[in-house]
Amino acid sequence: VNEESRLIARIARAIPSRPGGPRGGGLLVGVGDDAAVFRPRPGRDLVLSSDSFLEGVHFLADVHPPESAGYKSLVRAASDLAAMGAEPRFFLLNLALPARRTGKWLDAFLVGMARAARRCRLVLAGGDTSRHPTVAVSITVLGEMKASLVLTRSAARPGDRIYLSGVPGRAQLGLELIRRGLHRKSEWKPLVRPHLFPEPRLALGAWLARHRLASSMIDTSDGLSTDLSHLCESSRVGAVLWRDKIPRPQVPTELRRRGPNPELNPEFLALHGGEDYELLFTVPRPRAGKIPPQFQGVPLTAIGEITRRRRLRILDLSGRVTLLQPRGWDHFEK
Amino acid sequence: VNEESRLIARIARAIPSRPGGPRGGGLLVGVGDDAAVFRPRPGRDLVLSSDSFLEGVHFLADVHPPESAGYKSLVRAASDLAAMGAEPRFFLLNLALPARRTGKWLDAFLVGMARAARRCRLVLAGGDTSRHPTVAVSITVLGEMKASLVLTRSAARPGDRIYLSGVPGRAQLGLELIRRGLHRKSEWKPLVRPHLFPEPRLALGAWLARHRLASSMIDTSDGLSTDLSHLCESSRVGAVLWRDKIPRPQVPTELRRRGPNPELNPEFLALHGGEDYELLFTVPRPRAGKIPPQFQGVPLTAIGEITRRRRLRILDLSGRVTLLQPRGWDHFEK
Repeated sequence: VNEESRLIARIARAIPSRPGGPRGGGLLVGVGDDAAVFRPRPGRDLVLSSDSFLEGVHFLADVHPPESAGYKSLVRAASDLAAMGAEPRFFLLNLALPARRTGKWLDAFLVGMARAARRCRLVLAGGDTSRHPTVAVSITVLGEMKASLVLTRSAARPGDRIYLSGVPGRAQLGLELIRRGLHRKSEWKPLVRPHLFPEPRLALGAWLARHRLASSMIDTSDGLSTDLSHLCESSRVGAVLWRDKIPRPQVPTELRRRGPNPELNPEFLALHGGEDYELLFTVPRPRAGKIPPQFQGVPLTAIGEITRRRRLRILDLSGRVTLLQPRGWDHFEK
Repeated sequence: VNEESRLIARIARAIPSRPGGPRGGGLLVGVGDDAAVFRPRPGRDLVLSSDSFLEGVHFLADVHPPESAGYKSLVRAASDLAAMGAEPRFFLLNLALPARRTGKWLDAFLVGMARAARRCRLVLAGGDTSRHPTVAVSITVLGEMKASLVLTRSAARPGDRIYLSGVPGRAQLGLELIRRGLHRKSEWKPLVRPHLFPEPRLALGAWLARHRLASSMIDTSDGLSTDLSHLCESSRVGAVLWRDKIPRPQVPTELRRRGPNPELNPEFLALHGGEDYELLFTVPRPRAGKIPPQFQGVPLTAIGEITRRRRLRILDLSGRVTLLQPRGWDHFEK
């Protein structure tokens, strides 16, 4: 047995995984062969997404706890399934890391990933490992859903209501605290949590798809303004957001007293903060009455409307309309 | 449109890809949404594999032509489909690269990848891009095959004949030429080719599965000795190889005259050289007569037999038996 086989066995022990076989829930071949093999249930569409999670880009190995890196790398990919309305099934893990990260760091990383796997009901079905100077994770998730229920980015129509789950900007606020070295203050730990361990909205996404309530959906991994612009571009529409309706994170007064800082402004955080993994979805007017004020404890808020005019705008209570510039996260502009 | 969207559009133009839709061959949603969506054909099993291809580990950006990096990163993943007997369908690409590689280098990389995609009949269905100090590629391939025909590593039985496609060690010989700076000599270019542009054995793998000829299969990405040991471990068996039957690469006499070098020994190359992506498969005795001497011009050679005794051994013409140590590529032992 070589080093790689040993490492794969260690990963497969730490994370919910199945070697495949009759009781594998459709998984005929799992970890340990050239590829995973599964038998889809009849009448299902399959949903497939792949995401990188790279040291120095998506996390800082010396700042972020390894549990968070393991957790977020999987949640980030699983959130793409939520955004289509799919139910998670299996995932593949490509893990590259240096020798000094193969001990305790890897154990903690796997604890975080196992937690995300249980939460998302994802089972490890394969992948590979490599030695590499920095940690580089790539994760592929596979989900399933009843045929023809998938929610894309491209079917929003003028007049549709725009909804958002949760409170945007909380993950960014957590990151700003870390950037300022304030994340170890026990009183602020709860504020850092949404950045380190965001909750994917899988149940909500699947529920919206199953009941055909939404016309389009995207997750807010890049920030509300940027992901709204993605959705509008794909749908060839525009949007107007209602300024007073947009939920905002609570920024502690002690933090705000440290001086004016646009990056800590609650509205700025809500509009442009990334990595919330909330769901942004559109609902045709006649079905808007069926959207409850919250789903499993998570608030669902109508924050605006899709427009024919292909611009992103914000409407004040006073009736003033301003253009909204997407200022969220661009994975390639750094 | 942000940087990342522009880059994704450029990739999708360069590589066979489909945005999804009615004519997408089962692909309902392709590049550009949160995830790819496809509708499997009834009565098919799905085969899924994911492979990293990292600068400094799997290729050297300053030595290997970008066309080769793009080509090999996809062929490496597609070869896992060949090894199960699956027909390739779609792939996802996670591409991380530094700014200085986004110009001509990326164009050439995509030319190589497009060539591999056409050869493997793989269509790009999604992925992501990131800025990163080094090139890091991760590819997920999805294949399909008739239900219950999949060929795993774990079903070889004592008495089965061991077959190998092609000539092992050719890719390693090409790498050795590059290591010695001899790859630019025009007479030796054909010898470097199997290292830069290996041929995946997709048609052979699918044919063996379709006709239920093989009992188990693996591709020789890590080298014959190492991959045979993987297959035997998974199947809980051993093997004896017939020394005189193992095909060997031709090493030019001029190269051999440069002095004795075990790494350039034809038998050593054949047994331990990596990255050939040939197929190593086992055939139950009664079906061995149905294996032709070649398939589509590629030689198929019986090189040994599976044994109950869980050891890897080599049998000389003289009748002498020696132990075979797996000495191929271990992605984690460097």
